[in-house]
Amino acid sequence: MDERVREHAETLADWSARIEAGDDVVVRVDEGAHELAVAVAEALGERGANPVTVYDSDEVARAYLRAGDGEFDEDPGHELALYENADSVLSLGGGRNTAATADVPAGRTQAFSRAREGVREARLDTDWVSTVHPTRSLAQQAGMAFEEYREFVYDATLRDWESLAEEMDRLKRVFDDGEEVRIENEGTDLTLFIDGRTAVNSAASVAYDSHNLPSGEVFTAPYDTAGVVTFDVPMTVRGRAVRDAKLTFKDGVVVDWEAAQGEDVLDEVIGTDGGSRQLGELGVGMNRGIDRPTGRTLFDEKMAGTVHLALGRAYDACLPEGESGNDSAVHVDLITEMGEGSRLTVDGEVVQRDGVFRWEDGFEG
Amino acid sequence: MDERVREHAETLADWSARIEAGDDVVVRVDEGAHELAVAVAEALGERGANPVTVYDSDEVARAYLRAGDGEFDEDPGHELALYENADSVLSLGGGRNTAATADVPAGRTQAFSRAREGVREARLDTDWVSTVHPTRSLAQQAGMAFEEYREFVYDATLRDWESLAEEMDRLKRVFDDGEEVRIENEGTDLTLFIDGRTAVNSAASVAYDSHNLPSGEVFTAPYDTAGVVTFDVPMTVRGRAVRDAKLTFKDGVVVDWEAAQGEDVLDEVIGTDGGSRQLGELGVGMNRGIDRPTGRTLFDEKMAGTVHLALGRAYDACLPEGESGNDSAVHVDLITEMGEGSRLTVDGEVVQRDGVFRWEDGFEG
Repeated sequence: MDERVREHAETLADWSARIEAGDDVVVRVDEGAHELAVAVAEALGERGANPVTVYDSDEVARAYLRAGDGEFDEDPGHELALYENADSVLSLGGGRNTAATADVPAGRTQAFSRAREGVREARLDTDWVSTVHPTRSLAQQAGMAFEEYREFVYDATLRDWESLAEEMDRLKRVFDDGEEVRIENEGTDLTLFIDGRTAVNSAASVAYDSHNLPSGEVFTAPYDTAGVVTFDVPMTVRGRAVRDAKLTFKDGVVVDWEAAQGEDVLDEVIGTDGGSRQLGELGVGMNRGIDRPTGRTLFDEKMAGTVHLALGRAYDACLPEGESGNDSAVHVDLITEMGEGSRLTVDGEVVQRDGVFRWEDGFEG
Repeated sequence: MDERVREHAETLADWSARIEAGDDVVVRVDEGAHELAVAVAEALGERGANPVTVYDSDEVARAYLRAGDGEFDEDPGHELALYENADSVLSLGGGRNTAATADVPAGRTQAFSRAREGVREARLDTDWVSTVHPTRSLAQQAGMAFEEYREFVYDATLRDWESLAEEMDRLKRVFDDGEEVRIENEGTDLTLFIDGRTAVNSAASVAYDSHNLPSGEVFTAPYDTAGVVTFDVPMTVRGRAVRDAKLTFKDGVVVDWEAAQGEDVLDEVIGTDGGSRQLGELGVGMNRGIDRPTGRTLFDEKMAGTVHLALGRAYDACLPEGESGNDSAVHVDLITEMGEGSRLTVDGEVVQRDGVFRWEDGFEG
């Protein structure tokens, strides 16, 4: 076994999920993630944890979803009991075909998800972590050779998370103490308010309320957005490409939008509900292992030197206890690269210029 | 998808497990059984059942079992809850390497099984069925080409179970009404008593208390065995080959044994405990789709024209309510082919001669 697969499993168990002896763990294995599943089983055995391994196959899901009449029983007892009694859920992504469920009739996946709301809640109630094993299918999605993609995934995943968490904490404190953020970039001059909101240091560990490995972003929930923003990182939204989306905000609401490609997807997303016209998230990517977009948000939004904004739902973790932020059925991330001439400013003080943070070498204040 | 895979899944769901709408089903999928898992998901979707799919991988199990210290928590809550809340458990065998767990330290698998006794009981408390998807590894074990093995498996599995169940019921009634069985064959003249015992019509369906697909045998629990029996069908016991085992019984107990190969395995099995010196099962294979031995008991013991005897544990289903039969930690099946000149007699009446039952064409009474 490639030593990096083992290291991935150990990072997942120790840094991310904080597995301890006696933990009851559900391991969800995608079709192409067998090798990582073996390494995770080894790691769990060494730590004295108790795994139940679930086969999380898109082809199995497709067959099931297509076969029925579109009606689903609510929260089946055995599935609910499995997750209600689990301490941790480790999801090992890595399929063999990103389009494996392309011919499931429209609305059926959503109907199934609605019928599994209790199961989902039980799962989110555990120390859950999602990660990705590099497969050829994902390499293809990213436009990379398999070996190249594998290097990329491990560069992104096998980091010194402790020191990255410390660095991210600097930005978290700036956001927590700040009131007004300004983002200036080519095609972008945007102002957002974050007063009273709490930033999340997403350091790829349940100890940081962070549930993705890799992670590496600091995010908060903005309001009262105003100005213009252009997203130059190519994105796939609802299976369709979106290029150079440009949004104009006034009093916190999108009032105008256009895109070089995929404007119809923007129309759909923005038209979903009241909340989909406002931002739910301002995030800053800080993972230097991620050096290019891959078409997969899990990686792209953490790319060092980028900022992303999400239309739609805000995360409760960013809001004062008991308060809820922007609410919506959608949460769609759009990403902009902070290149030459860009500035990220909080309360008039420059935090990042030309994509370089003020605590980094090469920062010109 | 090969239409036979779909037919296999439908037979499993309808004839074997009697799946109905609303059933909570656990589907256990071996590494090589993906295709059957897809077909089973389709069948369950069509029937409105709710599957949770468990990845039953030997390589994952090996990694887990080797990694730890050999101590296991008893019946983890999440695993127990999954099976306690299930209506059916469908196990889809079909691995990629029958020796995948060969280097797990001795005793560890047994220790793990002991720690999962509650889980096992919960599973056996459901409408459980085990079946096999043809893989290259199993073809290799059977000494067949892959295509050849696939034909073999489907011949054994996709039968007219209803009519086979009716035929087997004839033999069941003979056994249920009988007192003394005599088996005569080359190297064999054995007498067994079955008075008061109930035969099981193992027709590959939970409706017949039969939990294997394929099945096709009638079995009961004998006592007071006397005489000599030779097993000419090659067997694999505890991973080692056994050829031409010959056992001599007196007053129900093995008093002498030898084998052309694997006599040491016989020594081990027979020396296990008091019950391992006696028979727990007399079975008659009646599945005409199984026309040759494969090295896998699931198939071999159901081969039409064979009789098998098991050293060790008897099945409760064969005994009067509340009574228990021969008890042992082992249950090892040995098989003999009823060829030319053979006779199976119950209370002095010939039931089968030269491998042909008395209700079959070609029977010479």
